[in-house]
Amino acid sequence: MATHGNERGFVRSFFTSPTAVEGDDTAEMLRKASQLRGMQAPDVWVPDNEDATAPNLRDEGVENILDVVSEHGEEFPGEIHPRIVWHRDDPETRRQGFEHMMRIADPDEGAIEHIDGFVVPEVGSIDDWKKADEFITVVEAENGLEEGSLSMSPIVESGEAELALARIDREIGKRSNNLERLFLLVDGEVDYTKDMRATTPTGELPSWPELRHNTSRAASANGLIAVDGPYDDIRDVEGYHERMADNRAKGMLGIWSLTPGQVVEANTGPLPPKEGTYLLEVEGKTVELERTDGGAHAYEGDDVELQALDEGRYRLRVGRDTRELDEDGLADALRDRTQYVVAMDDYVDSMAEFEEAKAAGRGAISMERTATLIIDGVEVEVTRDRMWDEATYQAAQTPITLFQEVYEARPDQRDELRDTYGEDVVDRATEVG
Amino acid sequence: MATHGNERGFVRSFFTSPTAVEGDDTAEMLRKASQLRGMQAPDVWVPDNEDATAPNLRDEGVENILDVVSEHGEEFPGEIHPRIVWHRDDPETRRQGFEHMMRIADPDEGAIEHIDGFVVPEVGSIDDWKKADEFITVVEAENGLEEGSLSMSPIVESGEAELALARIDREIGKRSNNLERLFLLVDGEVDYTKDMRATTPTGELPSWPELRHNTSRAASANGLIAVDGPYDDIRDVEGYHERMADNRAKGMLGIWSLTPGQVVEANTGPLPPKEGTYLLEVEGKTVELERTDGGAHAYEGDDVELQALDEGRYRLRVGRDTRELDEDGLADALRDRTQYVVAMDDYVDSMAEFEEAKAAGRGAISMERTATLIIDGVEVEVTRDRMWDEATYQAAQTPITLFQEVYEARPDQRDELRDTYGEDVVDRATEVG
Amino acid sequence: MATHGNERGFVRSFFTSPTAVEGDDTAEMLRKASQLRGMQAPDVWVPDNEDATAPNLRDEGVENILDVVSEHGEEFPGEIHPRIVWHRDDPETRRQGFEHMMRIADPDEGAIEHIDGFVVPEVGSIDDWKKADEFITVVEAENGLEEGSLSMSPIVESGEAELALARIDREIGKRSNNLERLFLLVDGEVDYTKDMRATTPTGELPSWPELRHNTSRAASANGLIAVDGPYDDIRDVEGYHERMADNRAKGMLGIWSLTPGQVVEANTGPLPPKEGTYLLEVEGKTVELERTDGGAHAYEGDDVELQALDEGRYRLRVGRDTRELDEDGLADALRDRTQYVVAMDDYVDSMAEFEEAKAAGRGAISMERTATLIIDGVEVEVTRDRMWDEATYQAAQTPITLFQEVYEARPDQRDELRDTYGEDVVDRATEVG
Repeated sequence: MATHGNERGFVRSFFTSPTAVEGDDTAEMLRKASQLRGMQAPDVWVPDNEDATAPNLRDEGVENILDVVSEHGEEFPGEIHPRIVWHRDDPETRRQGFEHMMRIADPDEGAIEHIDGFVVPEVGSIDDWKKADEFITVVEAENGLEEGSLSMSPIVESGEAELALARIDREIGKRSNNLERLFLLVDGEVDYTKDMRATTPTGELPSWPELRHNTSRAASANGLIAVDGPYDDIRDVEGYHERMADNRAKGMLGIWSLTPGQVVEANTGPLPPKEGTYLLEVEGKTVELERTDGGAHAYEGDDVELQALDEGRYRLRVGRDTRELDEDGLADALRDRTQYVVAMDDYVDSMAEFEEAKAAGRGAISMERTATLIIDGVEVEVTRDRMWDEATYQAAQTPITLFQEVYEARPDQRDELRDTYGEDVVDRATEVG
Repeated sequence: MATHGNERGFVRSFFTSPTAVEGDDTAEMLRKASQLRGMQAPDVWVPDNEDATAPNLRDEGVENILDVVSEHGEEFPGEIHPRIVWHRDDPETRRQGFEHMMRIADPDEGAIEHIDGFVVPEVGSIDDWKKADEFITVVEAENGLEEGSLSMSPIVESGEAELALARIDREIGKRSNNLERLFLLVDGEVDYTKDMRATTPTGELPSWPELRHNTSRAASANGLIAVDGPYDDIRDVEGYHERMADNRAKGMLGIWSLTPGQVVEANTGPLPPKEGTYLLEVEGKTVELERTDGGAHAYEGDDVELQALDEGRYRLRVGRDTRELDEDGLADALRDRTQYVVAMDDYVDSMAEFEEAKAAGRGAISMERTATLIIDGVEVEVTRDRMWDEATYQAAQTPITLFQEVYEARPDQRDELRDTYGEDVVDRATEVG
Repeated sequence: MATHGNERGFVRSFFTSPTAVEGDDTAEMLRKASQLRGMQAPDVWVPDNEDATAPNLRDEGVENILDVVSEHGEEFPGEIHPRIVWHRDDPETRRQGFEHMMRIADPDEGAIEHIDGFVVPEVGSIDDWKKADEFITVVEAENGLEEGSLSMSPIVESGEAELALARIDREIGKRSNNLERLFLLVDGEVDYTKDMRATTPTGELPSWPELRHNTSRAASANGLIAVDGPYDDIRDVEGYHERMADNRAKGMLGIWSLTPGQVVEANTGPLPPKEGTYLLEVEGKTVELERTDGGAHAYEGDDVELQALDEGRYRLRVGRDTRELDEDGLADALRDRTQYVVAMDDYVDSMAEFEEAKAAGRGAISMERTATLIIDGVEVEVTRDRMWDEATYQAAQTPITLFQEVYEARPDQRDELRDTYGEDVVDRATEVG
C-alpha cells in the first residue's frame, strides 16, 4: 500500500508481534499474526525481535521469522518489516542487529522476498541512522539484493533522534549513503519519555505534541510516513480514537497497534464515516446530535432548550444564555453553533460537483448543505454553505486518496469497505479525483 | 511602516486583492483596494496574482498591477507587495513568476517605484528560497534597480519551508545570495495542511501552534516580521480577534486580511484598548467585568455571590466554593482572582513613572492600581501591585513602540487614533520611551 | 549533585542572589544566601551580577563574590555558579563579563576553588556561545585552571539562542572549542518574550511550551540539564507547583527560585510524595480523594453520588450521567475514572518486585493495587493492575535515581528526607535499582 520513493503512500496500522514466546511452539504468535486478513490485518506487520521478545529468545526469533514468513509471507496482505535490535549507545547491540538482518536476508531461506524492510529502534543522531543504513546496504550486497530495495523505518525514541528528523533532508540523496530507503518515521513515546527523563505523578505518558509535530513535518518534507507509538490501554477504544484524530490533525497518518482489535480501529479510523453527523457546541463542549429515522438531527440533552413562541418567534437557551429570535435569527444562531462531520459520500459528491464546475471554467463555487435539527421537538432548517476552490478541493482529496489507495492495495479489505459504505459510494469514491 | 534591514518594523495587516476578475473592468477590485485609506488600508497590500486570480487571467493581472499601481501607488498609505506565482515542485511555474516580476519591474511602466517587494508562495527548502532571491536579483539588475532594494516575503506552506525557517540565519549574509531582502514570513495554513496531509473530521483547519511558533522564532532571530495566514470565516470577528491574541502571545504580529473589514480589525487589534478592564476568574473561565458610570467594575453573573454580614465580615461564593472572610481577606481573595487588561494610558503612565524613578537612581519600583469591584451591589476596593524593573519597562515598550511606529508611518490613521484614544493620550504615547 | 560530562546529574533548584545591594553592607544578601542549608539551600546557587544587581554596583558585586565565596564557599552544600554580564548584541558588555570572570577566577582570592562555573545570560547564536566559551578558556589558562574545568550555563532568552539549542550537538566535541563545559540550559522567559516581541493583554508571560520542549530536548541530546526561568508570583505556591509538574512532563527538571521559600518547593516538588493518593475524574476535572484514618480514599463533593440498591446493585451518578451497575460493573466504572499518584514507597516496592521477577527469568509481571474508595458512605474495592516490563522499570527509575542522587550529593538534606519519608523507605530507596 505504500509507494516508496518520492511519492508517499499511506500506512494506517503498524502491528507488532513477538518473534518468539515461551512454550512448545515459540513461533505461535508470529504464525497467528501472519494469517490475519481484512481489517484485522495491518498495513505494516512488524515481527518484533526487540522489546516484545525476551533477549534470550531473539536468535530463535530470527529463525521463526524465516519459517513463518517463507511459508505465509506471500499471502500476507500488508507489508512485512521485522524490527531488529539496535542502540545508539551500544555497538554490541548494533552488531547483533546487523547479524540478524544478514540472516533474515539469506535468499536460500525464502523469507526475504516477502520482506519489505527493517524497523530500527533506539536510533540516535543522523550519523547513527547512517550506520544502520550502511549495514542494510552491506546486507543487500551480500545477499544479491538490489541496493536500496530494503526500506528502513527508524523509531524516534530519544532527543537525539528527534533532532535528526530536521536533518534528513540534508543527508538524503548523498552518494555516500542510501537514506532514500527511509520509509516510516515511528515515534516511541515510552523510551522517549525515559530518555527525556520526563515524569508524571501517575506514570501516564506525556502526550508530546511537539515530537509528533516534528515527526510529521519530517515525513512531509521527505516523502515519508509518520506513525505514532503504542497506545497501552488496550481496553480504551475511545481514547485510541481520540489519539488518532489528534494525530491526523498533525498529519501523522499511522499508529502502532498492539492487538488485532487495535488494528481494526487503526485501519478504519482514518476513513471518513458512512454517515455525516452534526456537532453542536454547548458551553465550550461539543455534543453529537442523534440522527432520527427521518434523517433529521436531534439534540437530546438538558443544556439547550428551544420553545416556539407566538408570531414566528422562538426562545433559545444555550447553557445560561437565553435569547428570543425570529426564524432567521434562530437558524443563524444554530448554524454558528454547529459543525458538520463530513461523510464519505459528501466528499465524493462535493468533489464531483467541483470538478464539473471547474470543467465549465469556474474556479470557486458555493456548496450548500441543509439539514433539519430538532431541539425539544421543534424543527429548524439550518443551511451551511462553504466556498470550494482549488485548495478546498485538494484538501478534500487527502481522505479520498487514502480510500483509493487502500482499495487498490488491500483487496482483502474490499468486501468490508463495500459492506460499510455500500456499492454505490465505493464505486464513485474509487473514480473521483 | 516597516524598516527593512536589521531592525524590525511592524506589520499588522496583510491584505490580498485579486489582480484580475471576470467582467468589463478586470482591474476593478485592484483599483478599489488601491484607494483604501485609514484603518481600512492595510500595512501591506498584496495584489495577488496567485490563488486569488484565475490562472487564465494572470497575464492580464500583471498588466492591471502596472496600470493601477502606476496611477494610485504613490498615494497608497501602506507598502505594496504583489504576490507572484511560484512552486517548489514546478520549474514552469517558477519561470512564469520570474517573467511576471520582470514585467512588473519595467521602469517605463511607472509601477515599480511604488512597489516594495514580492510575495513568493509555495516555497520549499532554503535552496528554493535562494532561487527566488536570485530571480529578483536578476530583475533588479535588468531594470536598473539597486541590488537588494526589492524585498521578498515567502509563504510557508510546506513542511520543507518550515524546516527552512531554522536555516535562514545560516544563509543570510553570504556573498552568494541577497537573502537580506527577506521581509515577512507568512504562514499559509490551507496549503500547509494539504502538504502535511492533515485532516479533521469537519474540515476545519488545525491550529498549527508549532508552525506559528517556528515562524515567529525565525522572524525574531533574523529581524523579520511573522504574519499569520487567512482566517476564512469572515463573519466571525470574535474568532479573528482570538486568533490574533493567540498570535501576539507567540510574537506573531501580523495577520492576513481578506476584506477591508478584517483589515480594520487587524490594524486596531494589536493596539492596547482605550479603557482597562478587569477579568474575574470563575471556575477556570474568565469573565470581563462591566465598567459602571462611576468608574467601578461590576460583576453581572450568577456564578459569584457576595453578601455583607455583620461585624465587617463577608460571605463570598465562587462557583461551589463558599467562604466567610473579613474585609482584608475579601480584598485578597478577589485580587487573586482578577487580572487587569492594561489600557493605552496605563502603559504611558507606568512607563513615565518608571523613567522618572530610573532618572532618580532607582532600578525597581512598585506600581499600584486600585479599583472598586462591585458584586451583588457590595463594593470592594481591590489593590494590585506589580514590581517594575528594566525588564518590565522594556516589555511594556512592545505595544507602545508599535503605536509610535504606526503613528509615524501611517498619517492617514492619525485622526482615527486621536478619536479612539483622545488627544492627550496620543500626545503622551508618542513621546514616552 | 551534578555529574558533568556525558552523564547527566540532577539540578532541582537554581537560586539567584544579588551580588551587591544598596546599604552599609552591600554583600548582605549574598552572605545570607551562602549560609542556607538543607531544603532551603539550592542545588545551584547563582550570585547574580547581572539583572538582580544594579549596573553601578556590579564591580563591587564581583568583590563581594570573592569575599563571600572564599569565606563560605567550602561549606556551601550546593554548587556555585555566578552569573556574569553578557549580551549577544553588545561587545562592551561581553568585555565586562570577561573581566569579571577573570577577576573572580584569581586563585589568590580563594573563591574560584569553590566555584563550579559561570552562568552566561543573553546569548545569541551558537557562535556567540563559542565566544563566551573562549573567554572562559582564556580565564582558565590565565589562572592556572584545568581547561574545561569551569562549566558554562547559557540563558536562552532570544529566538537566536533557541535555534542554537538544535546545533549544540554539531559543535560540541570539536577541537576548536570547549563546549563540553556546557552544564545547564536555562530558559529566561521575561527577556525571551521581549525578544520575540510577544504581548498579552494583561502583561502575563506566555507559557512558551515549544521553547521549554526545545530546551529539554537539547539537554537530553547533549547530556545537560534543562532549567525553567523565574516564576514571578512568589505568593502563588500552587501555581509554582503546577509549572514544575508541567516542566517535569517535558523532561525539564529544574526551575529558577527567587526566594528560599521557592527553593524549598523546587527541592521537594520533584520527589515522589510520601503517600499515594487517588484522583477521580469528574466531568473533565480531576479531584483528589481524601485519605481516611482507615486508609481508605473518600470522595467529598457533590458531583458524584453513589447509592446501594437492593440485590447487590448500585446507582452511580457522575455529573449528569447516572447508571445502575452491579458490584463488578461499579468497580470497573470507578477504576476507569481513577488514577493513582504514585508514592515513594510504591516505586521502591514495585521496582524490588520487578527485580525479583527478572532474576527469576520473567520479563513482564502484572502489578496490582487495591484500594477502598468511599463515596456517600458506600465502600467500593477498586483494583488497578499495570503490566511492568523493562521499560516501565526504567521509567520508574527516573524519580528514584533523582532521590538517590540527592541523598548522595546533599548530606544536609538527609535528615529532612528521613523525617518526610521515614527511615525504612529512605533505606530501601537508596538501595533499590
